[in-house]
Amino acid sequence: MMRILILGGDGYLGWPTAMRFSARGHQVHVLDNGFRRRAHRDAGTDSLTPIASLTERVAAWAELTGADIRASDGDLTDPATVERVFAEARPDAVVHYGEIPSAPYSMKDRDHAVFTQTNNLIGTLNVLYAIRDLAPDCHLVKLGTMGEYGTPNIDIEEGFIEIRHNGRADYLPFPKQPGSMYHLSKVHDSHNIQFAARVWGIRATDLHQGVVYGIQTEETVQDDRLLTRFDYDDVFGTALNRFCLQAVIGHPLTVYGKGGQTRGYLNLEDTLRCVELAVTHPAEPGEYRVFNQFTEQFSVWQLAELVCKAGADVGMEVAVLPIDNPRIEAEEHYYHAHHTKLLDLGLRPHLLNETLIESMFSTIERFKDRVIADHILPRDRWRPDGRGVTS
Amino acid sequence: MMRILILGGDGYLGWPTAMRFSARGHQVHVLDNGFRRRAHRDAGTDSLTPIASLTERVAAWAELTGADIRASDGDLTDPATVERVFAEARPDAVVHYGEIPSAPYSMKDRDHAVFTQTNNLIGTLNVLYAIRDLAPDCHLVKLGTMGEYGTPNIDIEEGFIEIRHNGRADYLPFPKQPGSMYHLSKVHDSHNIQFAARVWGIRATDLHQGVVYGIQTEETVQDDRLLTRFDYDDVFGTALNRFCLQAVIGHPLTVYGKGGQTRGYLNLEDTLRCVELAVTHPAEPGEYRVFNQFTEQFSVWQLAELVCKAGADVGMEVAVLPIDNPRIEAEEHYYHAHHTKLLDLGLRPHLLNETLIESMFSTIERFKDRVIADHILPRDRWRPDGRGVTS
Repeated sequence: MMRILILGGDGYLGWPTAMRFSARGHQVHVLDNGFRRRAHRDAGTDSLTPIASLTERVAAWAELTGADIRASDGDLTDPATVERVFAEARPDAVVHYGEIPSAPYSMKDRDHAVFTQTNNLIGTLNVLYAIRDLAPDCHLVKLGTMGEYGTPNIDIEEGFIEIRHNGRADYLPFPKQPGSMYHLSKVHDSHNIQFAARVWGIRATDLHQGVVYGIQTEETVQDDRLLTRFDYDDVFGTALNRFCLQAVIGHPLTVYGKGGQTRGYLNLEDTLRCVELAVTHPAEPGEYRVFNQFTEQFSVWQLAELVCKAGADVGMEVAVLPIDNPRIEAEEHYYHAHHTKLLDLGLRPHLLNETLIESMFSTIERFKDRVIADHILPRDRWRPDGRGVTS
Repeated sequence: MMRILILGGDGYLGWPTAMRFSARGHQVHVLDNGFRRRAHRDAGTDSLTPIASLTERVAAWAELTGADIRASDGDLTDPATVERVFAEARPDAVVHYGEIPSAPYSMKDRDHAVFTQTNNLIGTLNVLYAIRDLAPDCHLVKLGTMGEYGTPNIDIEEGFIEIRHNGRADYLPFPKQPGSMYHLSKVHDSHNIQFAARVWGIRATDLHQGVVYGIQTEETVQDDRLLTRFDYDDVFGTALNRFCLQAVIGHPLTVYGKGGQTRGYLNLEDTLRCVELAVTHPAEPGEYRVFNQFTEQFSVWQLAELVCKAGADVGMEVAVLPIDNPRIEAEEHYYHAHHTKLLDLGLRPHLLNETLIESMFSTIERFKDRVIADHILPRDRWRPDGRGVTS
């Protein structure tokens, strides 16, 4: 039994992670500031799935399983909150999802960029200092993103690369070329965490995660009060989830630009398994390690084709609508990212297939009356003046 | 004639830079929030040189040269201030020294770390958005630091390195391994600026500067009201300047640890020349370029030896006192950093020699009654528990 503190434990990944560790017999404490729920309310958007409040979730979980998940409301940018939660939870591991996760949100304007970067950076600094001062043996498992790397013209390694240069060699941090103010915030975090490991001897695992898809987990299917959120809107939605929803409601799949943008993807169930593997195989004191957390690479076009095919199988007519890319990114590029460290620890991936997409269709179908269709198309451009896109 | 906005224009480098550009006939506007003066007052420390207020400096400069330097009081973390100054100055180039510059300050505790990183990051983001929205053709000349690179076991290139890997190649950002919360803030800035150049088409030069030494410039020698500050205390002082002062006041030179720490150094006059070269040879729209701004490499021991030798020449007895290193850093390491881009633009370095050190001695001698000797030794350790130093 470990004591596990989950920051951002009310979120898409945080809540299922909390239930998974609790189901495995660990003592789980979650902290969340409710940012995502507020941001949706302010924007007039919502999760497809009707999600219970954190209090209701925890109560339902206790009723169904007899296991207690402790929940605190609070903000990581307040150091007193962080210290109080560390004192209460006395964690062996901290799983840190507690950041603003959206590239479009961060690119709205200056204020959103500053808020995203300072929120994420200060929260993580406060966590690092709390570990140093209150829980020095605690293992930090931090959610980063594959987007930190950008799309270099060489293979992407897991956090570090051996560079041979002018007759010498060193094993150095892999160069980062993030594509939004949000992705930049994750790069800043990665540098700060690596420093804390090196200088203070903190144990840290930085999960450079791909794009997650899926709605249900072993735990969420037990009771609708345990459902996790499912975002498809222009700010918090992500590619495959949004395509599945578009297929169900008869909206053409919105492919940005040429659709050649290739990224790593993984199933929601695999996220839980990866985080569990990281927590149960902790980094050494002073070690900063990076796991590339995804299972397969797809281009946006490949995903659209898969959804079209799965749709045809169940009698849906799915159209594809290429639209102007709001982002500045390469739309045709080399992409090959290594991801063996989690496989070496025992990950057995749930690969994407039509059956899985069709099961997503059926969950979306159940809730499709809740869809707010006028917030699916992108509103925020990376270049406000709308100048042309690089590729 | 160019319109040049100098952020942090009241500082050690900012004020001499303002005078230099003004002397060359440019229209200069400086902005400063007075942070350094306040931090000294709060700590009971001070510049060796008695510095006039910014208002007095500007008045003296006008009296002596007939040239107007416009000065504004304000903080870069306030976006309205940044926008107002951009509207007033309508800059062709922004020289950005306006950041908290101290590693020991940033390592005091959590609050100083958070303040340093947020201050520097928000200020620079506000500047980037102001350029994007108010002065898109303006060239940003940003002061970074050679400390962003750390001490890799390969040659340090100027910002980017060609990496050949698994049969492919790309020209990528040089990996960064900064050694303090302050140095980390500069790495965060570098990533943000590079993004702004790529996505918004901003012109940017990131000067990865070495450690600056020296007191006087062509302008400061004209009148004591034009003197720039000279810091030797534990928070804002730097290696060679502090050694020269210690020699003059009969304090042993405080070498941290083994003294093998090798860094790039440059003369204050060369800083002015480098910045001038960067400003008068602007980056292209969308270009993010890095110049390694230093002229020579020295280990701390080499500097101590040079100061001892120069001291002996003028009849001083100079002792060396190795002390526990408060920092966590390699004390014996490979270090070879390239720095040809500014030489290619026409830089003719003032190399360090005994004559130069002796001229620093004589300026320090003039003001030595002002020395506050009990704030020279380091007080802030990188590891508060005082565990051993890595090397």
